[in-house]
Amino acid sequence: MRTKTNDGRFFEDYAVGQVINHAVPRTVKMGERALYHMLYPARHALYSSDQFAQTCGLPFSPLDDMIAFHVVFGKTVPDVSLNAIANLGYAEGRWHLPVWPGDTLRSQSEVIGVKQNSNGKSGVVWVRTTGLNQHDETVMDYVRWVMVRKRDPGADAPEPVVPDLAKVVAPDTLVIPRGLDFTNYDFTLAGEPHRWGDYAVGETIDHVDGVTIEEAEHMMATRLWQNTAKVHFDTSARPDGSRLIYGGHVISMARALSFNGLANAQMIVGLNGGAHANPCVSGDTVRAWSEVLDKAETSAPGVGAIRLRLVATKGGTPFELRGEDGKYLPDVLLDLDYWALMPL
Amino acid sequence: MRTKTNDGRFFEDYAVGQVINHAVPRTVKMGERALYHMLYPARHALYSSDQFAQTCGLPFSPLDDMIAFHVVFGKTVPDVSLNAIANLGYAEGRWHLPVWPGDTLRSQSEVIGVKQNSNGKSGVVWVRTTGLNQHDETVMDYVRWVMVRKRDPGADAPEPVVPDLAKVVAPDTLVIPRGLDFTNYDFTLAGEPHRWGDYAVGETIDHVDGVTIEEAEHMMATRLWQNTAKVHFDTSARPDGSRLIYGGHVISMARALSFNGLANAQMIVGLNGGAHANPCVSGDTVRAWSEVLDKAETSAPGVGAIRLRLVATKGGTPFELRGEDGKYLPDVLLDLDYWALMPL
Amino acid sequence: MRTKTNDGRFFEDYAVGQVINHAVPRTVKMGERALYHMLYPARHALYSSDQFAQTCGLPFSPLDDMIAFHVVFGKTVPDVSLNAIANLGYAEGRWHLPVWPGDTLRSQSEVIGVKQNSNGKSGVVWVRTTGLNQHDETVMDYVRWVMVRKRDPGADAPEPVVPDLAKVVAPDTLVIPRGLDFTNYDFTLAGEPHRWGDYAVGETIDHVDGVTIEEAEHMMATRLWQNTAKVHFDTSARPDGSRLIYGGHVISMARALSFNGLANAQMIVGLNGGAHANPCVSGDTVRAWSEVLDKAETSAPGVGAIRLRLVATKGGTPFELRGEDGKYLPDVLLDLDYWALMPL
Repeated sequence: MRTKTNDGRFFEDYAVGQVINHAVPRTVKMGERALYHMLYPARHALYSSDQFAQTCGLPFSPLDDMIAFHVVFGKTVPDVSLNAIANLGYAEGRWHLPVWPGDTLRSQSEVIGVKQNSNGKSGVVWVRTTGLNQHDETVMDYVRWVMVRKRDPGADAPEPVVPDLAKVVAPDTLVIPRGLDFTNYDFTLAGEPHRWGDYAVGETIDHVDGVTIEEAEHMMATRLWQNTAKVHFDTSARPDGSRLIYGGHVISMARALSFNGLANAQMIVGLNGGAHANPCVSGDTVRAWSEVLDKAETSAPGVGAIRLRLVATKGGTPFELRGEDGKYLPDVLLDLDYWALMPL
Repeated sequence: MRTKTNDGRFFEDYAVGQVINHAVPRTVKMGERALYHMLYPARHALYSSDQFAQTCGLPFSPLDDMIAFHVVFGKTVPDVSLNAIANLGYAEGRWHLPVWPGDTLRSQSEVIGVKQNSNGKSGVVWVRTTGLNQHDETVMDYVRWVMVRKRDPGADAPEPVVPDLAKVVAPDTLVIPRGLDFTNYDFTLAGEPHRWGDYAVGETIDHVDGVTIEEAEHMMATRLWQNTAKVHFDTSARPDGSRLIYGGHVISMARALSFNGLANAQMIVGLNGGAHANPCVSGDTVRAWSEVLDKAETSAPGVGAIRLRLVATKGGTPFELRGEDGKYLPDVLLDLDYWALMPL
Repeated sequence: MRTKTNDGRFFEDYAVGQVINHAVPRTVKMGERALYHMLYPARHALYSSDQFAQTCGLPFSPLDDMIAFHVVFGKTVPDVSLNAIANLGYAEGRWHLPVWPGDTLRSQSEVIGVKQNSNGKSGVVWVRTTGLNQHDETVMDYVRWVMVRKRDPGADAPEPVVPDLAKVVAPDTLVIPRGLDFTNYDFTLAGEPHRWGDYAVGETIDHVDGVTIEEAEHMMATRLWQNTAKVHFDTSARPDGSRLIYGGHVISMARALSFNGLANAQMIVGLNGGAHANPCVSGDTVRAWSEVLDKAETSAPGVGAIRLRLVATKGGTPFELRGEDGKYLPDVLLDLDYWALMPL
């Protein structure tokens, strides 16, 4: 009698070239922003004050960059990751347009790769997901790949297609929001004096603060993005009775914590890669550290781009990432590689 | 020294014909909607996207149907259920107008029945509650009956008046929102292909997903509707130290979970009945199943009405409702009977 | 490698006359109000209904008085209380303008006193904090004093300056919101019949209701005001592993609970003093009682001022405040002294 409910797609349901229009568009307004700033210690001034945003050449304050990501991502879950065993990676992510209060977002994914695992029980699916607004303009896009169960282990393996993905979004392809101008940037109101020129490639920053995670908070965050994966909500969905925390909750928590040391890394505009290294559960205290991976100039006045590695941990020593075996240390939760815009 | 605080009404304070104007009108906007979608996995597209709502003939997306119910209900608590022993039932509920962001809601109740219990210590009170907007238009109305303590067990019993209530809201009296038109309905964006014609009377649907309930979430939900009943907030209010979860929290959770299988049951317009069969407390994992009880046509283009039984459980087997003794099984939390609008 | 993060100021970093412009202005809208009413059982009608506010001469409903306080206060934390040992007191607080949805708030503090403690390890710092809106108008101001660690115990003690602070804000200096007029006040919609004239100096009111505090709620509240103090979020920040609850959370909870008995104490306009008597942690059940300390007339039509002591407790007996030794009883959380506006 489950014929009307969604069982999700299995590995053999994906084929390269397939386009999936994901359900339930969402109009986002200031309520969603208020919630984001309640769930995370988000303080980047451009996303906090209309006046600060105006000083930076924008009409008013857009919704936080990661709200766009979460809304676009959440819609893909029922079609892409309901039967996923693991979320393996991200690449080629770009923010094309700010999300303004009142925008309606929807998501579309194209299958760009499939490869069955050697065990025959699962396979890897690559999708390029595009978030669109009510004018059918692209708000953001990114590639992600997930390991998905097969419905029938005996089903034939498809011809493997593994997309050739850029290791890094080329900085000259980053999209700078129209009008953005950091020449009148107010460092006092922004919270820190450090400019783009003050950061050196290779520099590392311990963001010091920590937040102990609560069930109610991660579930509310995850629901807000209409992400329906059972493991986040239902204690009976996993053998150990714990609720797995949506990886995006860890991303947003770490990004917000990185304000302390990176208060001027105002807008995320590129997602080069990311790994959810270990599971996070309620009671973990999330901390973060960053490493400057690269820097680039942009065409916008006063605006530089900075490439950052953002690492979230639940313990351990800052700046330690992998063990001697090359694997992530057990206390590492997230290893994210992104481009942000910063005043020169 | 408690002379200025509200002790609530007791059974002998109610008389048939009495009209109670409930306190604290509330202006509701998009913030309340964002919260609703954070507290529940609410995904019905009409309440999520302005553009989707416009495709359905509405000017933009109204607030979720159950927000109207909760706001109207919450205001009645200090006057109707502060000394209630049990919330016994609902009947004759109709949604008359959508609630738009910026509307201000207030509530009014008329006492339509009283009947003292044989033990002389309590009695049943029936009220018809009307929710009004800032233009004094009726937004919704419904009957509910509660068992209320007597202040003085020795007080005389009133003449019993038991209202004659309809078992079902007649489908031709359901109010269809002005302009509603499902002829251009987008089933892909709505999330499921199943039309009104695809549902058969007697059909049952297991909504599969579950949500484990947290204290913080149900308290925030209950406060949002300005519902002040002590048992929801104060661990010392009940002998076992647990906080009883507001029955409406279970209704909204189950309704949201029913998206999976009933994504096109877009708008609730009638409440035929409902019982909070067993208490729900933090840690319970709420699941839901539905049964199609009836179907009816409407005068609006492309719009059908479907009568659904929505059952929330905290365990047990889907589709099992009552034991051999005719009583609700111990894992059944809610048995709700409502009319929703669905595309033909 | 912590050179880019904020270690906060230590005692020797403060000097009388210093002006600190606090970071991260914040645009607040209806989303923040919805959150406030979800986190606290806030029901004062002026802050709940646009129509009720209009009946009281205001253009529409402003944001709750304590939202202004929390936003202004939160911004001072990274500069004033990151290394604070204790928040010692408040004085001379006045609300100058209502906060309207869309206002952008920022904070500025002037150091008005410093006094090293006799142990040489810490000292007391007095600041007068001013909250400003986007028009550079003062929204509120107040004095607070905190005990702050010295970075270097051997550093010289500054010349002590102890400001002479008013014990009470003189009622004729309270700022009444422009247009406020309670002559058409609707006591039924407000929730209680008690007028200014019904309260006697010395009268005490037990607000009866209690709320058991949850971690998720106090952290969300604290984040909403961009208050970053580690002790509220990180279980490893305090020796006993508990998260200390932001004192402002207790203020707002107690103020909201005081609706029951003080529903007509609509707007807080003066803060005479306040002490966070004992720490509050998750699991405590917060209750409140009030004492009428004074009454005053105002120049606005139908508007009286009432001076109230608001005491929050986590147990004990209502109206008991201090032990025989003159110290606060262990169950007392908060002793707040404020002026509110009430219909005559």
